[in-house]
Amino acid sequence: MALVVQKFGGTSVAGPDRIREVADHVVRCRKRGDRVVLVVSAMGKETDELIRLADAVSETKPGREMDMLITGGERKACALMSMALADRGVEAHSFTGSQAGFLTDTAHRNAKILEVKPQRIKEAVDAGRVPVVGGSQGVSTDHDVTFFGRGGSDTTAVALAHALGADSCELYTDVPGVFTTDPRLVPEARRMSTISFDELLEMTATGCPKPAMRSVELARSLGVPLHVRSAFTWAPGTWVTQEDPMEAAIISAVTHDTSEAKMTVSGVSDRPGVAAALFRTLAGADVNVDMIVQNVSEAGVTDISFTVPHDQVDRASAAVDAVSESLGSVGVITDSDIARVSLVGAGMKTNPGVAATMFETFADSGINIEMISTSAIRISCVVREDQAENAVTALHRAFQLEKAPEDRELI
Amino acid sequence: MALVVQKFGGTSVAGPDRIREVADHVVRCRKRGDRVVLVVSAMGKETDELIRLADAVSETKPGREMDMLITGGERKACALMSMALADRGVEAHSFTGSQAGFLTDTAHRNAKILEVKPQRIKEAVDAGRVPVVGGSQGVSTDHDVTFFGRGGSDTTAVALAHALGADSCELYTDVPGVFTTDPRLVPEARRMSTISFDELLEMTATGCPKPAMRSVELARSLGVPLHVRSAFTWAPGTWVTQEDPMEAAIISAVTHDTSEAKMTVSGVSDRPGVAAALFRTLAGADVNVDMIVQNVSEAGVTDISFTVPHDQVDRASAAVDAVSESLGSVGVITDSDIARVSLVGAGMKTNPGVAATMFETFADSGINIEMISTSAIRISCVVREDQAENAVTALHRAFQLEKAPEDRELI
Repeated sequence: MALVVQKFGGTSVAGPDRIREVADHVVRCRKRGDRVVLVVSAMGKETDELIRLADAVSETKPGREMDMLITGGERKACALMSMALADRGVEAHSFTGSQAGFLTDTAHRNAKILEVKPQRIKEAVDAGRVPVVGGSQGVSTDHDVTFFGRGGSDTTAVALAHALGADSCELYTDVPGVFTTDPRLVPEARRMSTISFDELLEMTATGCPKPAMRSVELARSLGVPLHVRSAFTWAPGTWVTQEDPMEAAIISAVTHDTSEAKMTVSGVSDRPGVAAALFRTLAGADVNVDMIVQNVSEAGVTDISFTVPHDQVDRASAAVDAVSESLGSVGVITDSDIARVSLVGAGMKTNPGVAATMFETFADSGINIEMISTSAIRISCVVREDQAENAVTALHRAFQLEKAPEDRELI
Repeated sequence: MALVVQKFGGTSVAGPDRIREVADHVVRCRKRGDRVVLVVSAMGKETDELIRLADAVSETKPGREMDMLITGGERKACALMSMALADRGVEAHSFTGSQAGFLTDTAHRNAKILEVKPQRIKEAVDAGRVPVVGGSQGVSTDHDVTFFGRGGSDTTAVALAHALGADSCELYTDVPGVFTTDPRLVPEARRMSTISFDELLEMTATGCPKPAMRSVELARSLGVPLHVRSAFTWAPGTWVTQEDPMEAAIISAVTHDTSEAKMTVSGVSDRPGVAAALFRTLAGADVNVDMIVQNVSEAGVTDISFTVPHDQVDRASAAVDAVSESLGSVGVITDSDIARVSLVGAGMKTNPGVAATMFETFADSGINIEMISTSAIRISCVVREDQAENAVTALHRAFQLEKAPEDRELI
């Protein structure tokens, strides 16, 4: 009799029909013998609507009050879900984050969990009930309502699964699992039955939108097995677990990301401290710099390129201009038409040929590489945006990702 | 430096514009030197919308979950109000019923306050803040969220005003105060500057819609002075206080109510226990019987007439039919086209001529009286519904209610 924490995102509980379908699923799980604890997000676009309402009322929007406002969305979804379960003869009780025992710091809008004391949730499970917990919320050490930020319901689910000693944490969403690449781009894209935490983290960091990175990091550090799956087909999805080195695929997935622009600061003096001054300035301007590449020096000057999110380009330009003279630089060029294409695979650590195959694949497809950066289990290349689709398709085919790992030929 | 609890109903906070106007008013009150505590209802029709959503999801709608759902409406309004105040340089903190210290019983949907411990509200006031409390809600002895029922925000305001030792409790609404009669019916209707709790209770019991009767009863028993006033003109309204016998007007107001039907059970045996059997049966069927009149007996049988709300007529008929034989009755007649017209006045206790003047006024206007019932400070007559407007206008003129009490001629 497994204990399973099931988290349902906004699209999974977008309206009365969806809520009833989720309730039907819970009934099926219980018939199979599982004990179920639910975590739900706000319905559909409700969080956006609450923020729009706040915008219409206030300019200052204090964090304490925004958290009180926004957490109401999850609370509403919880209560409705519990009612739908009651109709099906399942005794269910909704719980706010505070009632569920989520104690947080006082950093409103983006609170961190300090401790989870799920006493009431345990009692409900022991009494045969289904607890339905509002996601992304808790109570601060100042006794105020706090919000964990967008995507925080995944974090609630993972933390609760750990605190309850649950057997697994199921993250239900509107996609059937984690794919070898974006199936809208590459029809042969394959749903992976398993992936390691590290691989998923590299994927979420390079453009794969779900689940929230913070919750994957938490699941990895707490050792909570995740199951990313569909709330529409109800079919099994992708298990995310600690990597088994014996079974690690060389390459798991190809991702691409067009959310960033490339900025190049040219003619920078090649002397100690220049790069530090540049990136300290960008950090001070709250710019999230991602890839950084510095060219080799010629005649005492060099170029530094980096990527930043599109909507931070103006901020970044202003910041660079302000320190331009002290860097000795001659200019800043912004290029918005780029894409980052990444190969992710826990097995690439021990397979040095991967990068070469990637670059050869690009060369064969006539795709020019503008920047390269690597981690232990990822290689990312910046290419022209209009070549991203070709790049992803070519890599997916070259590494035979349409096949299960055990069926692939060694490259 | 007065401490004032100000309660704003749904229409007063119906949208962003209204919320900003209320915030402006609070700023004016603070400039005048008052310390202010706010209680707010859910915005506009939000409570109805939440109930519709619950109806779309569930048939059983357990009380615990309905309360969790519905109290979200007040909570949302609180948070938005606090944000609007922050924009005006006023530090404001929203509080749920639980945070504000409202401990209740476990009767969901209609919880009763057991105790108010407004420690956090006191601290906020002492710190110069404006606390904004969600109306109609608390936390039960089982640690669950509870709702006081529709109109419960008035109760929250009164109970909080008492617990804080506030100087007064202002109930802001969409009308400018309490009138001598319905101004839509009688253009000369006059806003009263004061009225006694007892009079207001008789008025709310006979068709005057605001404020909620339960809150007036509570204010009377706790001795909290109420001020019913407009959130649209911001002009002074009507004070509701303990009656000063020296200054009591003979008649304060005329009200009318068309929400009830008259039922007559005819041919009832005139023997002990028959009326008891009839009304015990109606109570068992959850019928709210209001006026009751029994005619004199003729030949061992009598008629019993009573009024019930229109929407309970079917239930009442079925209940009476079930015991009809044991009563010896020959039939039940329902008459929906009636109105109850009432005169209310604390001074009528010591002025025995009031009833006579009322009946003479009706006779002069050709209005037939079908039923009469009285309390110490009220006389109600049932008349034809299409004569109600004439009846109200005639009484308002006969008792000179368009004039302030001190300007009236003695009748």
